[in-house]
Amino acid sequence: MIIIGERLNSSRRAIRVALDNRDKDFLIKEALNQAKAGAHYLDVNVSALAEQEIELLRWLVPLIQSQVDLPLSIDSPNPEALAVGLAVHRGRPFLNSLTLEKNRWTALIPLIKEYKPLVIALCLDESGLPDSPEKTLELAQRIREGLEREGIDVTSVYFDPLVRPVGINFKAGVLFIQSLRLIKLKLPDIKTVAGISNVSFGLPRRSLLNRMLLALAVEAGLDAAIFDPCDGEMMATLKAAQALAGQDNYLKNFLKFMREKKSESQG
Amino acid sequence: MIIIGERLNSSRRAIRVALDNRDKDFLIKEALNQAKAGAHYLDVNVSALAEQEIELLRWLVPLIQSQVDLPLSIDSPNPEALAVGLAVHRGRPFLNSLTLEKNRWTALIPLIKEYKPLVIALCLDESGLPDSPEKTLELAQRIREGLEREGIDVTSVYFDPLVRPVGINFKAGVLFIQSLRLIKLKLPDIKTVAGISNVSFGLPRRSLLNRMLLALAVEAGLDAAIFDPCDGEMMATLKAAQALAGQDNYLKNFLKFMREKKSESQG
Repeated sequence: MIIIGERLNSSRRAIRVALDNRDKDFLIKEALNQAKAGAHYLDVNVSALAEQEIELLRWLVPLIQSQVDLPLSIDSPNPEALAVGLAVHRGRPFLNSLTLEKNRWTALIPLIKEYKPLVIALCLDESGLPDSPEKTLELAQRIREGLEREGIDVTSVYFDPLVRPVGINFKAGVLFIQSLRLIKLKLPDIKTVAGISNVSFGLPRRSLLNRMLLALAVEAGLDAAIFDPCDGEMMATLKAAQALAGQDNYLKNFLKFMREKKSESQG
Repeated sequence: MIIIGERLNSSRRAIRVALDNRDKDFLIKEALNQAKAGAHYLDVNVSALAEQEIELLRWLVPLIQSQVDLPLSIDSPNPEALAVGLAVHRGRPFLNSLTLEKNRWTALIPLIKEYKPLVIALCLDESGLPDSPEKTLELAQRIREGLEREGIDVTSVYFDPLVRPVGINFKAGVLFIQSLRLIKLKLPDIKTVAGISNVSFGLPRRSLLNRMLLALAVEAGLDAAIFDPCDGEMMATLKAAQALAGQDNYLKNFLKFMREKKSESQG
């Protein structure tokens, strides 16, 4: 499971303030903490500071990479900002995110061809969010066909069945899980990704709900997840779910993780 | 989801000591705590005190029922003990458990006909524990056919696909979940039950593993579970998993549970 740390996101007030103040120490600490907690990629989204977005990415991407030896996930609704983020990134980042919306698709395909990033592709088009597993699968198939038409390697693309808040639609959790299962069943060679924390938006016990969704998604075969690795129990949940889902031979990772946690807490 | 509290079990040392001392207060407290935590049934297993088992059941079943307004689950490998437990029980208990092993089947079918309890039926026979979902399904089908031949109402019987320790076989979690899914798919009208805590036997972070298995089992459609309802996070996990699995209309139960927990912790 590829873990993409979500904390460097300008939708969080502390990050917005740090960006406004060009507070290098704070931003580097957020990056280092996620790396230490086990993230494989760090999502970077500064889009809440719209007018400064491009300038900020040009500053932040090299700053983070100078201190943390991890690739990033360049996250923006703005193709120009994505282009700048990809250009200044060292190594192979994620591009977050492609959709079937015409303008976005047209703007991002040339970037994907040029920089060959890993890609997060959301299962949505102009008509909005899919409301059934079948519709989500259909969107995934259309993305796949579009990528193949453009000669883009589909194995570099992670398909996102979209996690929505159960506080708004109480069927949102099962819609996500069933969509994920259907995509894994019908398109077994493609990879999947999900932003876990959306599920708990506006509800009490957010971490609990996030952890449970992660556990269910692991068992359903999710390949990559965006979440907060610094949430103490989130990583433990991931290890436990992998152990129960038969994805951890002889429980090596589970037992190693628990031993390390124990020695940390004693240290 | 029917919750069967597991704490009144003589495999726990504290219970064995309390039984030996006929410590009414302790045993009643264990029962009351589980009822308060949300159990619907209380499993009662005194089989570790083999020679006294029948005498103990005759004493304990009425004692618990005089103080706690819940039906019990009479749990023993010994048909004579089960007969006594059923005879002294008020209301409709679970009988825990029927299997396809010839001696046990022959001894228990008359009890089931006489007392008409709910029944936990383990998917195993003389040849031992099933090692694949297909074999587990086959055993479930044989149990079902056997019950039908005897004219026993199959809707009173909860089929147990068997939870085994992942510390012994690292594929045990996925074997259980896949067996459960297969039974729900092929025999959609029968009910299912599982003893959750077995999964974590001998491992660190037992509660975490138990909770994760419960969450996965909820999503896979489990109808009843045996676990420790007094484990603080177990019930919260159940509510969260039901919310994510689309089993909680408008999240009413989840929100109610979290409100009550909050007012408890403030009270």
